[in-house]
Amino acid sequence: MEKLKRTKILDLIASESYVFQQVNVSGWVRTRRGNKHISFIALNDGSTIKNLQIVVDTATFGEEFLKPITTGACINVTGQLVVSEGKGQTVELQASEIEIYGSADVEAYPLQKKGHSLEFLREIAHLRPRTNTFSAVLRIRHAMAFAIHNYFNEKGFFYLHTPIITGSDAEGAGAMFQVTTLDLNNVPKTVDGKVDYENDFFGKSTNLTVSGQLEGELGALALGSIYTFGPTFRAENSNTPRHLAEFWMIEPEVAFSDIQDNMDLAEDFLKSLIRYALEHCADDLEFLNTMWDKELLDRLKFVVENDFVRLPYSEGIDILMKSNEKFDFPVSWGVDLQSEHERYLVEKHFKKPVILTDYPKDIKAFYMKQNDDGKTVRAMDVLFPRIGEIIGGSQREENYDKLLQRITELNIPMKDLWWYLETRKFGTAPHAGFGLGFERLLLFVTGMGNIRDVIPFPRTPKNAEF
Amino acid sequence: MEKLKRTKILDLIASESYVFQQVNVSGWVRTRRGNKHISFIALNDGSTIKNLQIVVDTATFGEEFLKPITTGACINVTGQLVVSEGKGQTVELQASEIEIYGSADVEAYPLQKKGHSLEFLREIAHLRPRTNTFSAVLRIRHAMAFAIHNYFNEKGFFYLHTPIITGSDAEGAGAMFQVTTLDLNNVPKTVDGKVDYENDFFGKSTNLTVSGQLEGELGALALGSIYTFGPTFRAENSNTPRHLAEFWMIEPEVAFSDIQDNMDLAEDFLKSLIRYALEHCADDLEFLNTMWDKELLDRLKFVVENDFVRLPYSEGIDILMKSNEKFDFPVSWGVDLQSEHERYLVEKHFKKPVILTDYPKDIKAFYMKQNDDGKTVRAMDVLFPRIGEIIGGSQREENYDKLLQRITELNIPMKDLWWYLETRKFGTAPHAGFGLGFERLLLFVTGMGNIRDVIPFPRTPKNAEF
Repeated sequence: MEKLKRTKILDLIASESYVFQQVNVSGWVRTRRGNKHISFIALNDGSTIKNLQIVVDTATFGEEFLKPITTGACINVTGQLVVSEGKGQTVELQASEIEIYGSADVEAYPLQKKGHSLEFLREIAHLRPRTNTFSAVLRIRHAMAFAIHNYFNEKGFFYLHTPIITGSDAEGAGAMFQVTTLDLNNVPKTVDGKVDYENDFFGKSTNLTVSGQLEGELGALALGSIYTFGPTFRAENSNTPRHLAEFWMIEPEVAFSDIQDNMDLAEDFLKSLIRYALEHCADDLEFLNTMWDKELLDRLKFVVENDFVRLPYSEGIDILMKSNEKFDFPVSWGVDLQSEHERYLVEKHFKKPVILTDYPKDIKAFYMKQNDDGKTVRAMDVLFPRIGEIIGGSQREENYDKLLQRITELNIPMKDLWWYLETRKFGTAPHAGFGLGFERLLLFVTGMGNIRDVIPFPRTPKNAEF
Repeated sequence: MEKLKRTKILDLIASESYVFQQVNVSGWVRTRRGNKHISFIALNDGSTIKNLQIVVDTATFGEEFLKPITTGACINVTGQLVVSEGKGQTVELQASEIEIYGSADVEAYPLQKKGHSLEFLREIAHLRPRTNTFSAVLRIRHAMAFAIHNYFNEKGFFYLHTPIITGSDAEGAGAMFQVTTLDLNNVPKTVDGKVDYENDFFGKSTNLTVSGQLEGELGALALGSIYTFGPTFRAENSNTPRHLAEFWMIEPEVAFSDIQDNMDLAEDFLKSLIRYALEHCADDLEFLNTMWDKELLDRLKFVVENDFVRLPYSEGIDILMKSNEKFDFPVSWGVDLQSEHERYLVEKHFKKPVILTDYPKDIKAFYMKQNDDGKTVRAMDVLFPRIGEIIGGSQREENYDKLLQRITELNIPMKDLWWYLETRKFGTAPHAGFGLGFERLLLFVTGMGNIRDVIPFPRTPKNAEF
């Protein structure tokens, strides 16, 4: 008789149609307990945080056969699915056949039943997806990525792949990684002793992108509404729970859109993503709420249910200055807000997400639309509880002369930006957009405290393992 | 009175509910023609390949006002949508208000009405999305990316972000780009004269990934079914219509899956994507079919409607050797198939897509599952008309000893692969997966002949502009 086709545990648990049927499952053993007559195996196949209980009659299989079935082993089981009388599960599988795909030596396998510190798990990033916490985080990561694509697709945005390797360092958003095929043991030099990039792969110095926005604007000024979703890089030597050298960004850019439209989009977008998580990741969120952060679910629901506060930077500064809060960094008009300031506004003053607008132009990027006051630009940052800035965006300066003037004032190398400026020369249009750091979003949605724990293989200073 | 909210041209054309309504549109002028009494503007906003005809009464606006409305200018128009009596459109807009967002100097704007060569358009990649051809390609590119995410999400796969910067060169799939923060003008050296990577950002030599597969396997052996969709890089000095230095790859990896399941998945996946394109990109495909490739639609339908042929490499070699075809590269058992061979099998012999399996182990990667014959591995390549290999995959070697032996035979540096080997040590499982080059897929779906024309900003030797 041909072997039954495997069914995922998620599907087995979800539908009553499997009860009293013969089924076949595969997965990794979380635990095996029992006595010399009967064994209970908690089996997990990654499709859900829930384990399937496998009931094994020792006499049928023999103690020797069952010995390698320890935590971490991988097995395939055929049997009848029955209604469970035990606590913690609705169904269980009465094993009639077991195949052991792979054992996991009890002495050597690092993921034994006892809990592990997140720090330790980072060192075994190749195995940590087999833990409850990381499988939950990675399933939520998937769900959020899908929700993002789904949101934009439904709204008629086009996904644009902006380049990862870039020849321009124009945005100046941060320190960059250099990309090269030159032999570092023997760097070719020109007659005046400089690096001879003629011999490099691209014939010039190239870097990893820090943002797809500038190229995204090219797309928006042709296709109307686009978004990027790709890796971005910062070579900053920041060893903090909030920084990665390699992270993923989502950057929508919309033609015929102003700062108001941009705020509406950002708020609707974030709420829609969190609503999606609440609807589609209930089991995983429940687990994280119980294990790591008892306020997680309440916080997510709160964001979905409340309007974001919108106010100009200047008013935010007033509130901060009039507060009796002691800040590490003093506040005055013109300063860049620190996390402590953002969190004060969000968590203590308004007790709601806040969109701060119209920042001083000197602390914002050259491409933001200048206000008539000559001092501020149409920036908008979305500030979230626990996270601070989760989204940064702006209406863009679409006026060629004003943009050129700002580029000149800031000494940005013009030669790198000829193509960007041309979009303002030929059929320019009002447009706006923003950037969402995907891992920042995941910190908020999962409640995890360290950004290294919401990406499968974190890249940080001195760390590019796996 | 507040200005009407803008409606996308795609929506205006799709629904009869806008007819005889006041509407507001924005977009770029494709052409303006007419006489001194009346102007017809073909307006495109990127949402669809179709233009909206704007009818402008010259007397209402004045000739001077209308002068800057030339090809490439960006305008906003309010007016009544009416049923059109002209050819080529069902509705048209009778303008009552026009705002000019940005003009496009006739002498300077490179995208005048006349057709342009694809080569010329590559040099103005910042503007080419404003052409019919590239906007069609980019909309199809979006649709295919979404279809991929949608397919896997529905099937319970989790999207896994494998790292872009990698410390290991283990897969050996091709020449790599180095990633560094060292000062190339002054590379630090150790006492024995070698590059001192201690001072590099990651404390060791790092590269851009050539494939996410090895990390993808880690995900599959915990979450069950995963897929990657991210940029990959090859520093090969190949200036051909089929090679990019930076391209996007999709790599599903499935635990508890063998080569048969893998072939079923690949065939179903490709058919489902092409079906999606036929259903969702009809206008754009129609345009490309008319303009560039009269057999495009027939070819797409043919793939959807026919079963792929499946046969072992050895039988494929037999067919090639018995054919009377003159090949540039001679055929015998053991050779790696060239594009001419693949296309002979697909286009001339079977006249269907072909999945070739069980290749000689010496021309395939170390991780493929070894067959009992000692000579072949459970590889499977999907060969397509016009494209040749569109998918390459295999069942993976899950046996620790066999895998280690192959790694040793091939002198692959063990130290880079300790984490990969551990998945075979702890709860190993049969698993399989494949890689699909996204741009290869797009060449097939769009009918374009050069891979540089299916990615927004191509990176090739000596070319990293924009």
